[in-house]
Amino acid sequence: MARPHIVIIGAGFGGLSAAHGLAGAAADVTIVDQRNYHLFQPLLYQVATAGLSPAQIAAPIRAILRRATNVQVLLGRVTGVDTQARTVVLEDRRLSYDTLVIATGARHAYFGHDEWEQVAPGLKNINDATAIRRRILTAFESAEASDEPARWRLLTFVVIGGGPTGVEMAGAIAELAQVALRHDFRNIDPREARIVLVEAGSRVLSAFPEKLSAAAQKALEGLGVEVRLGTPVTQCDAEGVTIGDDPLPAATIVWAAGVAASSAARWLGAEHDRAGRVRVGPDLTVPGHPEIFCVGDTALAEDPEGKPLPGLAPVAKQQGAYVARTIRARLAGQPEPGPFRYRDYGTLATIGRRAAVADFGWLQLSGTLAWLLWGLVHISFLIGFRNRLVVLIDWIWSYATFQSGARLITGPGSY
Amino acid sequence: MARPHIVIIGAGFGGLSAAHGLAGAAADVTIVDQRNYHLFQPLLYQVATAGLSPAQIAAPIRAILRRATNVQVLLGRVTGVDTQARTVVLEDRRLSYDTLVIATGARHAYFGHDEWEQVAPGLKNINDATAIRRRILTAFESAEASDEPARWRLLTFVVIGGGPTGVEMAGAIAELAQVALRHDFRNIDPREARIVLVEAGSRVLSAFPEKLSAAAQKALEGLGVEVRLGTPVTQCDAEGVTIGDDPLPAATIVWAAGVAASSAARWLGAEHDRAGRVRVGPDLTVPGHPEIFCVGDTALAEDPEGKPLPGLAPVAKQQGAYVARTIRARLAGQPEPGPFRYRDYGTLATIGRRAAVADFGWLQLSGTLAWLLWGLVHISFLIGFRNRLVVLIDWIWSYATFQSGARLITGPGSY
Repeated sequence: MARPHIVIIGAGFGGLSAAHGLAGAAADVTIVDQRNYHLFQPLLYQVATAGLSPAQIAAPIRAILRRATNVQVLLGRVTGVDTQARTVVLEDRRLSYDTLVIATGARHAYFGHDEWEQVAPGLKNINDATAIRRRILTAFESAEASDEPARWRLLTFVVIGGGPTGVEMAGAIAELAQVALRHDFRNIDPREARIVLVEAGSRVLSAFPEKLSAAAQKALEGLGVEVRLGTPVTQCDAEGVTIGDDPLPAATIVWAAGVAASSAARWLGAEHDRAGRVRVGPDLTVPGHPEIFCVGDTALAEDPEGKPLPGLAPVAKQQGAYVARTIRARLAGQPEPGPFRYRDYGTLATIGRRAAVADFGWLQLSGTLAWLLWGLVHISFLIGFRNRLVVLIDWIWSYATFQSGARLITGPGSY
Repeated sequence: MARPHIVIIGAGFGGLSAAHGLAGAAADVTIVDQRNYHLFQPLLYQVATAGLSPAQIAAPIRAILRRATNVQVLLGRVTGVDTQARTVVLEDRRLSYDTLVIATGARHAYFGHDEWEQVAPGLKNINDATAIRRRILTAFESAEASDEPARWRLLTFVVIGGGPTGVEMAGAIAELAQVALRHDFRNIDPREARIVLVEAGSRVLSAFPEKLSAAAQKALEGLGVEVRLGTPVTQCDAEGVTIGDDPLPAATIVWAAGVAASSAARWLGAEHDRAGRVRVGPDLTVPGHPEIFCVGDTALAEDPEGKPLPGLAPVAKQQGAYVARTIRARLAGQPEPGPFRYRDYGTLATIGRRAAVADFGWLQLSGTLAWLLWGLVHISFLIGFRNRLVVLIDWIWSYATFQSGARLITGPGSY
């Protein structure tokens, strides 16, 4: 008798956690991803700002799942799902499934201004990160080689969006300019770089308590970042941005303002919210399809008060593990676990060298202690001992010498 | 009175060594490179075969020359030299010089078959290396997802050229297949990969003594590499290669067969050899232009017996230092040093895990001892303490765990 076939789409935090949970189960598992590596996204901004190398925050999916002998890894791009025939459609093949787990994550969203992507790239994968790194480093190089009037535009960096990614990016660019590049140029002083963080809402890190938002803003301003609140960006082009009616010439723009779920809702023809997330039941299945689960940024799941769960790595991980438990219970003919409950162990965001905020509900921290905690947590979550050790050395090195480790301009358009 | 202006084109081993030698001299120095980093080329094959990350073998030129306050670094692409006006022409500006040092290195040459570059990329810079890494890893991924007949072509890797780069590449691909990837696939056994090294001449590593060539070939064959000697490649296309009249279907082809100097000879209208190297005098100046020096792969310099010096990093470094000494002597109005003499401290080439060959003239080594020596020498030459430490850890890690550290498919065409 053929063993049941479980297909997992996406090897991010959610998909990988489901695959781990299904290792050794009485089923064949195929995990499909369009990339050959799992990416530790919370540190991606450090690649974009030349602190870490891509390989330090990424690990081959095959290597991670090497010991899970019932799990196959397939490099491929999914183009649709045929829910009638229970088949996943890839560019060059089809995979039939008995159970499907969709964990395809999110991309950045430009709220109807897709043409802004050209000038204001977002940060979701390694190619994004090395492209942003190239832009930032090239701006300093061009400023060094330019005369006064052009120089100011080249030395202006705008980060759009005051969530964790925007705050981390702005802080990291400021530190790159203030510290790592400080002695490298002869015609410009990198400390004169202007870093502007634009947030349409009334405060940065709006998911955190107000006290921590204020602490984060103060830390950013201490690094020399201009924080512009309460006015949206109305235009992005090669010249710069317009904030409300106020034009701001800038050579480098980073988009950290919005995310949209992947195409899963379209594949399934399922109900979804404005951001494209598929509405799922308390057991994370798609209504009418008990054999299809959605997890992580793909899913619109709610807590018991009806509030949508946030798009965070721990949510995706816990959901993946939960789905694996449910599938294992079904395979064994045992009762399924109760509805999914997210256990919030606290949320962290970093601003820069020795500054971070931490919210544990019962405890709120900011400053050096929060930063040390942030470092510990992120290093311990990084996949693979080797990555942990190398990242640790890199950080200690950066900290001790004020240097940035990975300041390479590479990729398309470089020689 | 204006200080003399020395322009150095290229921040490879030769250019950087000249810049170091001129630090603090009574002159303004500008070093121009089309990239923002100095690359430790002897380890580039390890990036192409997923052993190291780009940032581990590259360091920002600005950071290297940070303390040389009379040295300016300029990111730019040189398009010509006006020797009458003593001006270097860049894409977007001109630089006048009193003394010019050309250290622009070499690219691979396809001997009149430039169309082969598409299918058989060479290995000279980081973009080349990540592109080759992408091809190699993607070939294994495609083989895993393919059926029998197509699989053999996907699992055939051809390296063209039996010099040090070709030998290192073939050995590293073999180890990747035999060791690092061994447990990662479910449908293929990576150890069935066929790695073919093609050399038109009668032995590999022809610059080494015959005894060491034989040792290298034996070590390669021990790793499962097929060594095909004595017949040139006559065709390269999307299907594979033809060796003499013998077609060999292969999905991945790496070109390590020939180098040609950069455009320096054309810029100068100077005498050059078939490989494009500029013929220089015993003091490394271009005949008729005592103010223009060529070093490294750009120059055709000869030893006292009239034999051309080889295209090796130590030659370029010693030439750069020599040119700096000559320029300093001129600035001080003192007698110039005598003709350039290359001091050969020995040559090394590695084949793989615990195999290398070393030629010191008076001593010839092969095997584990040569490999340990090779590792020590390369780590100690890597620029910057940080790189040394991280590379050391990576190597120890790879060695202890049989893992490969940087197996990422990134860049154009990846998602």
